Amino acid sequence: MTGKNYIGFQLSAKGETTYRTFNPKTNTENSALFTEANDHEIESAVALAAEAFPVFKNLPGAKRAAFLRAIADEILALDDTLVQTYCNETGLPEGRAKGERGRTVGQLRMFADLIETEDWRQPTIDTAIPDRQPMPKPDLRQFLIPLGPVVVFGASNFPLAYSTAGGDTASALAAGCPVIVKSHPMHAGTGELVASAIAKAAEKTGMPNGVFSNLNSAGIEVGQKLVQHPKVKAVGFTGSIRGGRALFDLAGQREEPIPVFAEMGSINPVVITSNALKNRSAEIASTYASSITLGTGQFCTNPGLILGIESPELSQFVEDLGSKTSEIDAQCMLHPNIHQAYEANGAAVSSQANTEVVAVHDGPVSENYAQSKITTTSGAAFLQNKKLHTEVFGPFSLVVQCKDESELLRVISGLEGQLTGTIIAEPDEYRQLEPVIDTLQDRVGRIIFNGVPTGVEVCDAMTHGGPYPASTDSRFTAVGNHSIKRWARPFSYQDFPEELLPSFLK
Amino acid sequence: MTGKNYIGFQLSAKGETTYRTFNPKTNTENSALFTEANDHEIESAVALAAEAFPVFKNLPGAKRAAFLRAIADEILALDDTLVQTYCNETGLPEGRAKGERGRTVGQLRMFADLIETEDWRQPTIDTAIPDRQPMPKPDLRQFLIPLGPVVVFGASNFPLAYSTAGGDTASALAAGCPVIVKSHPMHAGTGELVASAIAKAAEKTGMPNGVFSNLNSAGIEVGQKLVQHPKVKAVGFTGSIRGGRALFDLAGQREEPIPVFAEMGSINPVVITSNALKNRSAEIASTYASSITLGTGQFCTNPGLILGIESPELSQFVEDLGSKTSEIDAQCMLHPNIHQAYEANGAAVSSQANTEVVAVHDGPVSENYAQSKITTTSGAAFLQNKKLHTEVFGPFSLVVQCKDESELLRVISGLEGQLTGTIIAEPDEYRQLEPVIDTLQDRVGRIIFNGVPTGVEVCDAMTHGGPYPASTDSRFTAVGNHSIKRWARPFSYQDFPEELLPSFLK
Repeated sequence: MTGKNYIGFQLSAKGETTYRTFNPKTNTENSALFTEANDHEIESAVALAAEAFPVFKNLPGAKRAAFLRAIADEILALDDTLVQTYCNETGLPEGRAKGERGRTVGQLRMFADLIETEDWRQPTIDTAIPDRQPMPKPDLRQFLIPLGPVVVFGASNFPLAYSTAGGDTASALAAGCPVIVKSHPMHAGTGELVASAIAKAAEKTGMPNGVFSNLNSAGIEVGQKLVQHPKVKAVGFTGSIRGGRALFDLAGQREEPIPVFAEMGSINPVVITSNALKNRSAEIASTYASSITLGTGQFCTNPGLILGIESPELSQFVEDLGSKTSEIDAQCMLHPNIHQAYEANGAAVSSQANTEVVAVHDGPVSENYAQSKITTTSGAAFLQNKKLHTEVFGPFSLVVQCKDESELLRVISGLEGQLTGTIIAEPDEYRQLEPVIDTLQDRVGRIIFNGVPTGVEVCDAMTHGGPYPASTDSRFTAVGNHSIKRWARPFSYQDFPEELLPSFLK
Repeated sequence: MTGKNYIGFQLSAKGETTYRTFNPKTNTENSALFTEANDHEIESAVALAAEAFPVFKNLPGAKRAAFLRAIADEILALDDTLVQTYCNETGLPEGRAKGERGRTVGQLRMFADLIETEDWRQPTIDTAIPDRQPMPKPDLRQFLIPLGPVVVFGASNFPLAYSTAGGDTASALAAGCPVIVKSHPMHAGTGELVASAIAKAAEKTGMPNGVFSNLNSAGIEVGQKLVQHPKVKAVGFTGSIRGGRALFDLAGQREEPIPVFAEMGSINPVVITSNALKNRSAEIASTYASSITLGTGQFCTNPGLILGIESPELSQFVEDLGSKTSEIDAQCMLHPNIHQAYEANGAAVSSQANTEVVAVHDGPVSENYAQSKITTTSGAAFLQNKKLHTEVFGPFSLVVQCKDESELLRVISGLEGQLTGTIIAEPDEYRQLEPVIDTLQDRVGRIIFNGVPTGVEVCDAMTHGGPYPASTDSRFTAVGNHSIKRWARPFSYQDFPEELLPSFLK
């Protein structure tokens, strides 16, 4: 670990600001000292990326695929060093580190497979009709081309799968866009290790210098400068609404606005029907207690909002959910700041009018460990009070008890955009669910049936995104092969000479 | 002609501001008096659209297709009334009116064909693997769903094909989005006639009230209010950079930002190689004189910039282009304001340092008729002076004489984003064109070979869009079947009951 920035293939630490990462489990700083990138380094990284772009984008897909596969191999070669650094910087267990590494490597290989052929470019051929009346029809051939250098901001809660070599980086590189990562300050060491793997893979597979850079920064200035740089053409972000919105605004204010794909907050409403509660309330409570506390609730798909219609069964469920959740051992959060925000936001929600705390985990907790919390309110209170719609990042959920279906529908349609919505129902109710499904569909990117929202499968049919503020552009998904489309644009050749056409357009 | 707004199926004129359209050929106001929509009417139109949305989006594709075809039929049924109103409001000839009507009707029918099946939704099915280790794989089914009510701003230069029932409206309705048109004030009469056709078609085919509204406005406030309305979910715009950017900024500043697809300015660079000039200079000059003056130069794909390398042949070409262009009769522009802007912008460009006017049409001209103008400058001057990059909307072109290929490449890479780029070259040069093609590709949405940029074929492989400011989102095209994707987002069902799935996901 050097604590330096990767400016292309070079390690560099010319800046004056330094910082350390933190081990929330031991409640101590980690030893490595990281140096923030300075203006000169930012400029160099972007200039190198812009120079690399025309070379990188014109490489055959198979060459970029080899690069992605080499990154996967180099990440695995980091082995225990990576796993230990990950754990020391997040307080997450080793199993989680390995699982996330598997997901990261899997994503890189998935995009490698995708670009082995050029089908991802959606080549479309309209041949000429020279004798068409009144005007001849020209020959047109369309395909996707990459946008240019992309800046990626990694997520605090996914140091591997949504960070340095995560989904945004993998899909942008796959598309032919050089990537500059603004390293997440909470896991700068994990970031540097992964960056070293990418740099090594790039050199081994003959990629142009500048195809990847990794810039350290504990503050917001480095990221702001990157997003404002005229040679940067798109931005990927995973994190808070405030952070994502600030970058979206900056990008929109540029002389040349650029797309920002920010995947942000979500409280992931879960609708539980009366019959489901009648038949299997205890089982649902138990399943949801696990989902709410999974990964200390630090998932963007954490079920933070549960909706039902007032009944003795719902009251019983609320009680069961509270007791099941508080039975689960407290776990460490990613960072003291995140833990403090959890406490503050949870307290803010539960102190609203007509809102009560059902249960709080009351076992012994160490520093930075989160006490899970289940709260409840009425549909009327929720409809009136936007503060109850706030995401509480952590093992927290709010059960809204609506007085009837009409109020339930108003609650759903009054929600901000969400990544997911879940429906728990019994087969004999399916046919009456249409209004709920229809209303929910308008607010979310994915509807899960009789399951939990946590767990985002990496596959073609996945939509990880949704109406604002779940994401800043609901027209794209952040997970799966289709996420490559965020970094590409359609382009057409008209009446182009056969000999100059790329082979996939012939 | 009533001069009223269509608020859903109802004619309404409660506002206090009125205006008339103008016949630039006779240089007189047309008689019909149009009433601007007031706040109450804006609110009603949006509320009706929001109510219509859940009904409209859930109609089978074949029903919406019938609606689109009925609109085409009703537009044709307007017959001579429409053609005469069009001509009286634009100064364009009858042939153009009929041609554009054909394009409009063709687009409506194309989208009707597209949505007869649900393939446009790109249904993607990933089936479950319940026994996968370590975690079962869920069943995921993704498809495209519409965004919600869309506001469309029509183009001054395409009163039919890019306005009331133009490409934006047709594609949005096809996707299942209700549309509110902010009528273009220069052709409010044409707009009202087309709106009446849409309203009639909607009633005949049983569409929900509010699926379409048409609001009059001579100022900018109605449009601003529409874009800011929380129930509006996307915006289509065709027009000036200033207008498009203002709407883009407004939409980005909303609490919930919404996508704006604005197709704006372009000067459409044309690169002519040395051998092409040696072999067929006069022919190219003649072809380009026609393209520059086509439709009085009032096309977004008008070739406003011609690039070559200094040589006696290029000097000869510039002279030929000047004389051929000035031989073409002056034609009427759309409106006195557009004519004044043409004169002012053309004068501004030609008064820049090291820029000279090669030829100006000097025949007799009536009021509002444009005198074509060919100008020339050096590569060095063009590189230094952004004013020379300004679009002059009308029969104008600037020939840039670069000192060598390296300067030519710098000129191309220094261009703002463009809808099109054109290359005129000879077969023996094809193999050396790679740097030009590659540099141009990064700046444009479409490259035309040995042709003219004017003429935008409506087909699947067309890209009408490009890097900013050609459009505000280069990831989409404004023309062709793929333009429907601007108004839709991916959505997934996870583990959804078979009986609740739409048939195209089974």
